[in-house]
Amino acid sequence: MKHEVIVLRIGHRPERDKRVTTHCCLVARAFGAKRIIIVGEKDEKIIKSVQGVRKKWGGRFSISFSESVKKEIKKLKKQKFALVHLTMYGLKLKKEIPKIRKHKKLAVIVGAEKVPIEVYKMADFNVSVGGQPHSEIAALAVFLHELFKGKLLDTKFAGAKIKIVPEKNSKKIAH
Amino acid sequence: MKHEVIVLRIGHRPERDKRVTTHCCLVARAFGAKRIIIVGEKDEKIIKSVQGVRKKWGGRFSISFSESVKKEIKKLKKQKFALVHLTMYGLKLKKEIPKIRKHKKLAVIVGAEKVPIEVYKMADFNVSVGGQPHSEIAALAVFLHELFKGKLLDTKFAGAKIKIVPEKNSKKIAH
Repeated sequence: MKHEVIVLRIGHRPERDKRVTTHCCLVARAFGAKRIIIVGEKDEKIIKSVQGVRKKWGGRFSISFSESVKKEIKKLKKQKFALVHLTMYGLKLKKEIPKIRKHKKLAVIVGAEKVPIEVYKMADFNVSVGGQPHSEIAALAVFLHELFKGKLLDTKFAGAKIKIVPEKNSKKIAH
Repeated sequence: MKHEVIVLRIGHRPERDKRVTTHCCLVARAFGAKRIIIVGEKDEKIIKSVQGVRKKWGGRFSISFSESVKKEIKKLKKQKFALVHLTMYGLKLKKEIPKIRKHKKLAVIVGAEKVPIEVYKMADFNVSVGGQPHSEIAALAVFLHELFKGKLLDTKFAGAKIKIVPEKNSKKIAH
C-alpha cells in the first residue's frame, strides 16, 4: 500500500526550536512524508531553509504553519487521516505498526513541548518508539523507517539538481 | 553478539547546539549506547541534564567532553573499536550493516557541523542512513535501531526510579 503521510509538529518557538524543528522537517521529507504542518510561531527562516533543500535535492515536500492544533486535527480527521501520536507514553510500536499500516492516509504527530492531553484523546494511535525519553526527531525517523519497512532509505527524489555518489572514504556529489 | 557502543559527537557550541546535542545524548542512551564523547566546548548543563535522565530512568550511561577529535579517534582505535561514521556521503546502510555487526566494539561518529575529511579517511565505515540531508539525531537512532535489529526498543533499564506503563489514550508512570 502506498501511504500518504503528513507530519504535524506541535510547538515551535523560533529562538529555542529553530534547529530541532528544521531537523524534524528534513527527516519528514527524507523518510517519506509529503508535508509538514507546524503549530507555532511562523518562522520564515525555516520555510526558506526547507524549500532550499527541496529545490536542490528534489521531490515534493511542503511546509506550512498554523496557530491551532485542534483546528488542524479536525481538518485532518475530515480528510480521513488516521492520527498517530508519537509519545513515550503510548503503546509499543511493534504491536501497533501492523494496524497503522492498514491506513492509507496517516498524520504523524510529534511534540516539541508538553502535548495537551486532548491530543492523546483525539489520536487514533498513541505509539511509543521506546518507552524512554529521547527525541521527537529520532521517534519520527524510526517510526517512518518502520512504516515503510526501510524501503525508502535509498529513494530517488524526482527533479534533484544534485545527488550523492556513495563513497567508501570520501565525498562525491553528482550535478 | 552483544555490542559495546560508544557515540562520538563532533562539534558542540553551547548556545547553538544545546538542544540538538541533548537529543543526541538521549538517543544514544535509549537506543543502546553506553557512552557519549562530545568534542566541543564543555557544557555543564548538558552533563547535568543527561545525568538527571539516567538517575531517574535507570541504566548505565556516561557522558564526557573532549577537545580533540583525533585524540579520541586514536584512543578508540587503540581500544579496538571499529569506527562507523554516519554521513550522507557514505555507503548504503543496508549493504554495510552486516559487516558492521561483526565488530563487537563500535564507535559511532556523528557530526554537528562539517566533519573534517580526515575523519572520512580514519573511519572503518562511512555509512549513509539515506543519501539525503536530514539529521544526525535521526541517523544515529535509525543506525542503532538497525544494528540491534529493533530489539532494544523495549529494553528495561536497571535501577529505574520511574517507568512508563503503556496506555492507549493517556499517560501513566509507575514509581
